[in-house]
Parts: sequence; C-alpha cells; structure tokens
Amino acid sequence: MARGSGISQDELRRVNLSAVLARVHASGPTSRAALTAELGLNRSTIGDLTAHLETLGLVREVRPTQTRGTGRPSHLVVPRADVTVVAIGLDVDRIVAALVGLGGVVLARRERRHQRGGHDVSAVAVSVLQSIHELLALPVAQRCLGVGVSLPGVVRSDDGLVRFAPNLGWVDEPFADMLQQGLGFPVRAGNDANLGVLAEHLRGAAVGVDDVAYVSGGVGIGGGFIVDGQPLRGSGGYAGEIGHLLVDSHGRPCRCGSTGCWETQVGENHLLEAAGRLPGGGPSAVAEVISAAAADDARAATAVEEVAEWTGVGLRAIVNLFNPKVIVLGGVLAQVWAIRQDVVIRSMSATTLHALLEQVQVVPAGLGEDSPLLGAAELAFERLLADPVGQVARVRSLEVESG
Amino acid sequence: MARGSGISQDELRRVNLSAVLARVHASGPTSRAALTAELGLNRSTIGDLTAHLETLGLVREVRPTQTRGTGRPSHLVVPRADVTVVAIGLDVDRIVAALVGLGGVVLARRERRHQRGGHDVSAVAVSVLQSIHELLALPVAQRCLGVGVSLPGVVRSDDGLVRFAPNLGWVDEPFADMLQQGLGFPVRAGNDANLGVLAEHLRGAAVGVDDVAYVSGGVGIGGGFIVDGQPLRGSGGYAGEIGHLLVDSHGRPCRCGSTGCWETQVGENHLLEAAGRLPGGGPSAVAEVISAAAADDARAATAVEEVAEWTGVGLRAIVNLFNPKVIVLGGVLAQVWAIRQDVVIRSMSATTLHALLEQVQVVPAGLGEDSPLLGAAELAFERLLADPVGQVARVRSLEVESG
Repeated sequence: MARGSGISQDELRRVNLSAVLARVHASGPTSRAALTAELGLNRSTIGDLTAHLETLGLVREVRPTQTRGTGRPSHLVVPRADVTVVAIGLDVDRIVAALVGLGGVVLARRERRHQRGGHDVSAVAVSVLQSIHELLALPVAQRCLGVGVSLPGVVRSDDGLVRFAPNLGWVDEPFADMLQQGLGFPVRAGNDANLGVLAEHLRGAAVGVDDVAYVSGGVGIGGGFIVDGQPLRGSGGYAGEIGHLLVDSHGRPCRCGSTGCWETQVGENHLLEAAGRLPGGGPSAVAEVISAAAADDARAATAVEEVAEWTGVGLRAIVNLFNPKVIVLGGVLAQVWAIRQDVVIRSMSATTLHALLEQVQVVPAGLGEDSPLLGAAELAFERLLADPVGQVARVRSLEVESG
Repeated sequence: MARGSGISQDELRRVNLSAVLARVHASGPTSRAALTAELGLNRSTIGDLTAHLETLGLVREVRPTQTRGTGRPSHLVVPRADVTVVAIGLDVDRIVAALVGLGGVVLARRERRHQRGGHDVSAVAVSVLQSIHELLALPVAQRCLGVGVSLPGVVRSDDGLVRFAPNLGWVDEPFADMLQQGLGFPVRAGNDANLGVLAEHLRGAAVGVDDVAYVSGGVGIGGGFIVDGQPLRGSGGYAGEIGHLLVDSHGRPCRCGSTGCWETQVGENHLLEAAGRLPGGGPSAVAEVISAAAADDARAATAVEEVAEWTGVGLRAIVNLFNPKVIVLGGVLAQVWAIRQDVVIRSMSATTLHALLEQVQVVPAGLGEDSPLLGAAELAFERLLADPVGQVARVRSLEVESG
C-alpha cells in the first residue's frame, strides 16, 4: 500500500500474505509458531495464510516427524526453491548468471567473459540472453518468474533504462527492454550497489539492521543504502551515487566531467597507478598490490595507505549524512580495509561528531563479490513478494499445483 | 506497525484511524467523500472512523448547510484546533515559542532573546519554560498534548539528549528531560533541519513530494531529508549532517574539528567576512550583504558569487546521493539563491550525471524561517497521529467531550 493510505480488508490479506512469504523467503524454513510470534498475528490467521500460499504453489508445509519436548509440534513452512528467477551480474570484466530459487538458494550458475566486441550493447545483450537460455533449459527452471539485472551505472527504476554507465560506455540504453523482447519475460534492472545493499541486508553482513550503507569499489565506486529498513531509491531510482562526491577540490578529473570525485582517489585504477602498476588490471591486480603492501613493498604500501586515508574521508561523509549502524565494504575498499583499518578509522574520525561515529560498525561484505548478483535476484522476486496472489495469477507459467 | 510485520484486525483499526487523522491534520477540513477517495476505504468505514475520532475529541463533523449540484452533500471533517502542542524554535539569537493546534494552526506566538548569560543551558531552560507557561496560561491551551523543541545541533531521537550543539556550546545536555521535569508534560526535541523538512513536506514548498532535501544555512548548515515519503533519521536520529561534508581538502578549519567542511564555505559568517563585514551579525547582516551585492558593491558581489559557487557544490552532493525531486533552501542559502541562481546552477551542473539533475527543482522554503518551529510542532503531534486512541487514553488532560 502507499504509506499514509488506509488499509481495506482486501488489502489486509495481501499485506499479510506478503509478510509471511517475505519472512520465509528471507529466513528459510520457519515454523508456524515462529511466524505467529514474529508477525504479531494469531495462530489461526497464520495457518490460513500459509495454506493459501501452499495453494499458490509458493511454499510447502511440512509436518515435523519428530516431537521435541511437550506440546503439539508446529508445521514447518518451507519456501519452494523450484519457484525461480534468473539473476544477472553484469560488470566490466564478465557476465555472471544465476538461477535463484525462492528462499535465496543459488541452483545453478554460469560465468562468461565479454565477447571480443567489448561492451557493444547488442553484443552484451546476446551474451546475456545465451546465459539466460542455458539456465532456463535446466529442468529445475520450469517455474521461472523473471529476470533481474545488476549493472554498473545509473539505471532508471521504472523501466530499467541505463541512463549512464561510463565503464561500459553506455548512455540511455534500454537494456532491460532489449532482454525482455528477446525473452517474453519480465526483466528488471538496477544499479549494482543499490542491489548489493539489498542482498547484504537480507542475507549478508547486515541482516536485521535498519540503517545500512554498502560501498563497493571497482573501477568506480558505488553506494547503496537501507534507511529505516527500506532501500533508498530517490525520485528516479538514481540515489546513492557516492563515487562522485567531491572530496578534493584540487583533485584529478573524473570521467563524470567533474574533478576530485571520491572514486578518482579510491578507485581500482588509482590504486594501481599509485602503486606503479598499469591501470585496467582489475581485482586480481588489486589483490597483488594488497599482497605487495603487506609484504613491505614500499610503493604499494604508500599507495594503499593513501587510498585508506581517502576511504575514511568518504566514509565520514556517509556517517554524517546517513548515520548508519553498519557500513558494508566491497571490492577494493574491503581489501584496503582488511590491511589498513587503522588508517581508515583515523581518517573517518577527523571530526568531533562523535555521536555518529560511536554507533557505526564497518564490516566487509558478507556475500563477497556476489552481493549485486544476489540483489538482482531480489529485484526479480520483488513483485511476487509484494503481491503473491496477483503475481501468481499473472505468471501463466507458474502452474498451480495441488498439495 | 513495524514494516514487514503482519497486521492484525486491532492494528488495522489503529492504522486507519491514524490515516484519517493524519490526513485532516495535513489538509485541514476535508469532506468524507474526499477521504473515501483518497484513503481507498469505503464510505461506511470512513464514516465509522470519523465518528470514532469525533468521540475522541479530535475532530468535529460539520454537516454542510448548502448543497451544490445534485446528490447528498458530504460531511466535512474538521481537525479540532483546540487540541494543541507547544513548539519551541531555539536558535543562537532567540527563542520562539508557538501554541499550535491540530491542523497546524498557529494560535499564539512569543519571541524572546537569550538572557545575558548567553547559552548557559539552565538559563536557556528557564527562558523556554517561561515562554511555555505564558502560552499554557492562554484559555485556548487547555488541551495541550506536549512540547516539541527544535535545536541547532545533533540530537538523540530516543530521549532528546543534545549530543553536540557547537553554536550553543552544548555537549551531551539532557535538555528535553530538563524541560519535562519542569512541566510534567512529554517533551521531545530534534535537530532544526530534520524538523524543518517535516514542515516543508507537510505545509511548505514540498507538499506531496516523496523525495525532498531541505538545507538551511545560518552560522552552520543543517540538512533534513524526506526519502520515499518518510523522514530520514538514521540509527540514532542523527542523519543529515550535511554541513560537515568535506568539500575542500585545502579548506579552512571547522568548529567540528575537521577542515574544509561545506559550512566553512557557505555559512553566514564566511559570507560576512568575505564581504568585509564582521562575523556574528546574523540574518540581518546577511540581508545587508545581499542588498549590497545587488546594488553593485563589488566586494559583496564577489563574496555572494563565491558562496553561490560552493552552494552548488554541496547541492550536487545532495543530488548525487539522494536524487531528490525538490531541494528546499532556507536561511543564507535561500538568500544567495535568490540573486545568484545562475551561479548555483552552473556549479551544480559540473558533472555529467544528467539523469539526476534533470529531475530536481530548487526552491526557497515555503515557510520562511518558521520551518523548524512548525516541524517541532509536528514532532509533538507525532504520537497522537500514530495512535489516536492510545494517546487520548494516555493524556489525562485531554478530556473526552461529547459532540
């Protein structure tokens, strides 16, 4: 429902079905007793809702075979992993595709490099469609609901139009539409960091935390935020462009057209160049610099220290603006954090807004490099979770199975 | 309710009573027909809810005397302005107190300067209590629910502890508690900009807009945000400290302990000094510089242009991070915007993240200097609007009146 609206009896059923399904999707098999306690609904209402979800083919109710202690054992409500989506993680180096079942289980995974043509949008679409078709050909993919795509760029939330993806060289490419036409399936797309934070919040390093920042560094720096339990989207879905925060007014030019952006100080290529390496080496070259720094290569160590210093500057801005409880780091930022926490923390603390600092915890991503990919799966599941009845009715391929 | 929870039948009634009361509080007298259409509930449910709110003494239902066109005229649901709160706007120069009725009507207003003792916390509390007692002595203040206080500082949302208010010289002052003990009334406190955005969203320049930034400049710069229709609070209620965004790594020291913070480049005192005036002159001195700049005083004009330039830098960060639809400016920033929009816009646009820029509108505050004060009233009304039945039961002074 829209916030501030009233809720009718019909709406109430949708809201409660959605709450139960979202809970088992997030937590996996859950007893009816636990659902009753957690959702604040009574036992008979929960039984009614889970029965309805079973009829829709979305969960299975399992009677426990063993009793523990006294009292009647509670049915276990199990999300059906054969209700699936395809998640695509598209980045500068490669395309990862995964078939993900309700409950967040990765059932299959394919990875490929970009073709020789580089990032030509049609060529990338062809590669992505091939990956999707490979996954859809698997027997377990019969009840696939749709596709979610993670992209390193500014993506319009309405329709997945890629407004600007500098590292792919894309401007205003209707990438989600292109895939959808090739598939006849709903396809949604989003910014990689915005999706990354969804996954870290649901299954990663920030489960149960209401105020989360996720910052991931590659060639560019992406930011995604959970505020008061909800994803920060902004009016067009573009929020979180933390990489283009001005941190040094005397700094280097950025590919966004400005100068001194945060990502010019902490991005992969800046670290590589500062360490005397060639840019463009990607995560493996970064890992090498980190090892060299740890092994007392002075130039690498200085480069890492400098990046750690600027990492703290950006994190300070995040703390001052969002007052998060947890900051989750991915990519190069997580690697720099791993060996120079001390420098990052010192730089973050160059302020007396202690109230904000004392509350925040910085942690590496719980899902490693997969946060955006798994977030893309969540994007594809979103409509089902919001309106199970409506979506099952919509998706013809999702045949209602009897018990 | 907590998001993600289920909603029971009991909860449903609370949610719907809250939705109706919040709507008439925001919009003023509203017909039952309009409520039916806007809240998505049926006619008889709305009638039942408004009757309940009337019994609680929160609204009055008025039968229209005149019929227009055909059809039965719809009852008008009128918020009762004799249900009141006291709002306090505390800033460096002065203390403003207002008695505000449900529906947002300012019924009375008192203004005083700080005592000779300056900002000594006990002296300020005494002054504020005097203002409150003056208002409570008015006949219209019989059904006062509580007090909301706006402060220029970092305020803990739980209990109104003032963590850090540099311009008052306060650190960890339990100001809300001090007032509450003197009153026997619930007192809540919040950061001035966080409260300002509430009021601008409800009754000012950003009514009906889901993604709003409010930035107000005085000696310091405060930021408050509405994201997806809800106030951004952060995990401790400290979010929005935009004044301490690093914009110039070679910049001036800030009273926060860091250097090159945004407020060192765009705060009142910087503008005054750059224009060759003494710092500390407050809004009237700023207004003089703006007039001088408009009248071709070269030094004033250069100072205003420089501040306009840096205003754009900070607004760009807001756009990139929050993707707001509307940015509301208050204080010195609104004054600079009024005469050098061109410079602010040029500086904001020094980036090719066009997608975000094309959506945003910059406007001066609709409520002028009163946004934080009126936001403090909203803070005091918040619990009543969330749970009308529970709060009326709690507040003994709010006697149930029959029809």
